[in-house]
Amino acid sequence: MHRSWSISGIDLLLPFGSDLGRRQGLEQGLRQAIRDGRLPPGARLPSTRVLAHDLGVARGTVSDAYAQLVAEGYLVARQGSGTTVAAGPVLVVETAPASAARTVPRADFRTGTPDLSSFPRTAWMAAARRAVHEAPDDAFGYGDPRGRIELRRALAAYLGRARGVRATPERIVVCNGYTQVLAILCSVLRSQGAGAVAMEDPCIPVHREIVAASGLEIVGVPVDSEGARIDTLAGQRLGAVVVTPAHQFPLGVTMAPSRRSALIRWARSAGAFVIEDDYDGEFRYDRQPVGALQGLDPDRVIYAGTASKTLAPGLRLAWLVIPASLMEPVVQARLVTDRHSGVIDQLTIACLIESGEFDRHVRRMRMQYRRRRDLLVAALAERVPALRPSGIAAGLHALLMLPSEGPSEGQVLAEASARGVALYELGPSWHAPGGHPGGVVIGYATPPQHGFTSALELLVDTFAALYPV
Amino acid sequence: MHRSWSISGIDLLLPFGSDLGRRQGLEQGLRQAIRDGRLPPGARLPSTRVLAHDLGVARGTVSDAYAQLVAEGYLVARQGSGTTVAAGPVLVVETAPASAARTVPRADFRTGTPDLSSFPRTAWMAAARRAVHEAPDDAFGYGDPRGRIELRRALAAYLGRARGVRATPERIVVCNGYTQVLAILCSVLRSQGAGAVAMEDPCIPVHREIVAASGLEIVGVPVDSEGARIDTLAGQRLGAVVVTPAHQFPLGVTMAPSRRSALIRWARSAGAFVIEDDYDGEFRYDRQPVGALQGLDPDRVIYAGTASKTLAPGLRLAWLVIPASLMEPVVQARLVTDRHSGVIDQLTIACLIESGEFDRHVRRMRMQYRRRRDLLVAALAERVPALRPSGIAAGLHALLMLPSEGPSEGQVLAEASARGVALYELGPSWHAPGGHPGGVVIGYATPPQHGFTSALELLVDTFAALYPV
Repeated sequence: MHRSWSISGIDLLLPFGSDLGRRQGLEQGLRQAIRDGRLPPGARLPSTRVLAHDLGVARGTVSDAYAQLVAEGYLVARQGSGTTVAAGPVLVVETAPASAARTVPRADFRTGTPDLSSFPRTAWMAAARRAVHEAPDDAFGYGDPRGRIELRRALAAYLGRARGVRATPERIVVCNGYTQVLAILCSVLRSQGAGAVAMEDPCIPVHREIVAASGLEIVGVPVDSEGARIDTLAGQRLGAVVVTPAHQFPLGVTMAPSRRSALIRWARSAGAFVIEDDYDGEFRYDRQPVGALQGLDPDRVIYAGTASKTLAPGLRLAWLVIPASLMEPVVQARLVTDRHSGVIDQLTIACLIESGEFDRHVRRMRMQYRRRRDLLVAALAERVPALRPSGIAAGLHALLMLPSEGPSEGQVLAEASARGVALYELGPSWHAPGGHPGGVVIGYATPPQHGFTSALELLVDTFAALYPV
Repeated sequence: MHRSWSISGIDLLLPFGSDLGRRQGLEQGLRQAIRDGRLPPGARLPSTRVLAHDLGVARGTVSDAYAQLVAEGYLVARQGSGTTVAAGPVLVVETAPASAARTVPRADFRTGTPDLSSFPRTAWMAAARRAVHEAPDDAFGYGDPRGRIELRRALAAYLGRARGVRATPERIVVCNGYTQVLAILCSVLRSQGAGAVAMEDPCIPVHREIVAASGLEIVGVPVDSEGARIDTLAGQRLGAVVVTPAHQFPLGVTMAPSRRSALIRWARSAGAFVIEDDYDGEFRYDRQPVGALQGLDPDRVIYAGTASKTLAPGLRLAWLVIPASLMEPVVQARLVTDRHSGVIDQLTIACLIESGEFDRHVRRMRMQYRRRRDLLVAALAERVPALRPSGIAAGLHALLMLPSEGPSEGQVLAEASARGVALYELGPSWHAPGGHPGGVVIGYATPPQHGFTSALELLVDTFAALYPV
């Protein structure tokens, strides 16, 4: 219900809804009118007596509303000169349009995301219920910057068992995803005097952005079939080198044993750290997982694992296992960054790990992704022999390097896009643009399970059209 | 089950648990022995044939285990010279002792935390269940850096209704607590060329640390009975001023209407921003809540609200309503900080707000805290007339300024601590140490509801002993 009402010749529509109450309705109407500029700065309001009479409300209602708006700075009350609109113009905020609808691809093979339709909602909620009901009261307060002890205990055992990581709960820091891991490590390295960090070339572009945002210089490390070329680090002054030894992103190679040892030797002699981004270490199909590099030297290697591929990126949870020497600066950096991660998801994951549900889920997904990979490899072999997927022993993506005589990376992406197929382009992963062989990355974990077969068909049709036999 | 076994005269105990399988058991035992130094660098391992015979396992089991450890860099296999332990010494991580048990105070009146025993676990879980089961699949993926649209929609309506904030979902950014809010805003201000930020003096010490960590200089703004002294800002070159207008922390004063207008005028003429830290705006006892300053000029005021006082700090969730001009840099800063906040808690709070449960909880807590405040004020008036609590119209804390002739702040804290009473000391809140009147802050929301009466008794006994009538 609204009432029309006029001040200084300006008509106002005042909402008088029963829910809000009369005073609040009056306040809201006046506030809105002042904000909209309908009641301009300096405009004099009727006396409380007059307005109460006009509106048919108690005088106290109007004086309370005026007093509130004076307290908020919209109105000014001066002894003897009545109530006026405050002098500062109150600007109007336009309502931004809702973000433009994005086109949803018919077949989404952009890598980086596991199958979100397989997020274990029921197991999650069962664990969350236990976690929330069993948590001590103080779990809901400000807590340890490293994260909840329940999760750090579960992770220390899990990481040792599943990834060969040497972890104690005291050395684990739970973070908001690998993005925060990298940002915090960079800020610590910088504050310790580092000027540059080496990163694999190619790597994820946004990771370079994160490092660059911290003010560190980035040195590229070429990657060959045995992983990062450690020999190129010799003689460089670096705070750290960031590597993906289990399954290089995006090339998919596994770091060779000799490179692993060489990397540790280099880190020791250079007094530098190795940041091991173990983003998809849980997913290995052709043999036992390769244990984490960190196990070789927990004082030089900073291990980073994540829930983004095993559970869901939307959780924004990752974990660091850090050398003793970095504990204090990392904790300090975390305190001025955001203190710690949200406790409920942490307690929930701890329950999932302790109950075995986490391992069951990972096992189930590993089988599912392995089958997807096999289907992809078989379909390409049959229909697009020109393309040979690589990097397929592990992880959630396969690399397709494009033959130099065929269509370019841009042409492949355009054709795919025209058919509703979204791919991850290799191009932006290189540190310097241009001069690189073309390639695309197939994130075969991305499509929902129920739609994988049809998505794969669209994908293979696209390549078959681009590379006719 | 373990088997004892000897290499190069060193006895090893190999775990052969049925769960792990023989190969994994062998791998684990060898890995452990190498890490512990029991198998030193260069030690030669028996041939696979010999070891398989000794252990009574298939030869393939041993070769697989060796191959795995070669892949991980623990062992080196050379054609013709057998398998040896890799040269790089594998360092041993000592297990850090569990963090020393902290003394739990008998009566905890440190401010900053709401009553954690009243966290609405049941309502939370009901909302979480709905949130998780109804969420679209893509909610679990990488998402909008501003946060889930469901929460931003709910917040826009809630903040308008409860706090007079002018918000659209497009202008809201959900963050990990006020710490992250402040850290991100500082990094944005700095990248836009700001060199200094003004902060109320006194304020929370860790907030100064956050600003200082961003590289910004801090200018103190004195606070009097009408709030921050805006007049002291004149002529200063500042990127922003951080204020707590609804209930100054720690002094508890509410910013006077004239100061609110003066602040907006200053911000406009200086081209600076106002950061409104509305940490406890939901809790006002003596009259209508004072609407947010942001409503006066959403283009100059950055509004920050939080779930830390209404629900729990452990959630690490806060929200910004930001001027259009800051949207792009804030979103960019968030992307390289940690992308976005965890989605499940966000969706849960959205459900809590939409269902009315959030308001019900806040209302219930407001009544509870009001009653606690009344009990505190009455008990002090009766037994410790020398102390007059101030800043009690709102929020979760009261300020006790200490009479200059009585015990010092340090003496009060020591006596309280000796009696098991924890207080929040005023001293560190001042920008510059020394020369300030003594005071303590009573966080009367902190004790659990069931223990409030006895905690209050201990508190008042302490003061009665210090200030005998």
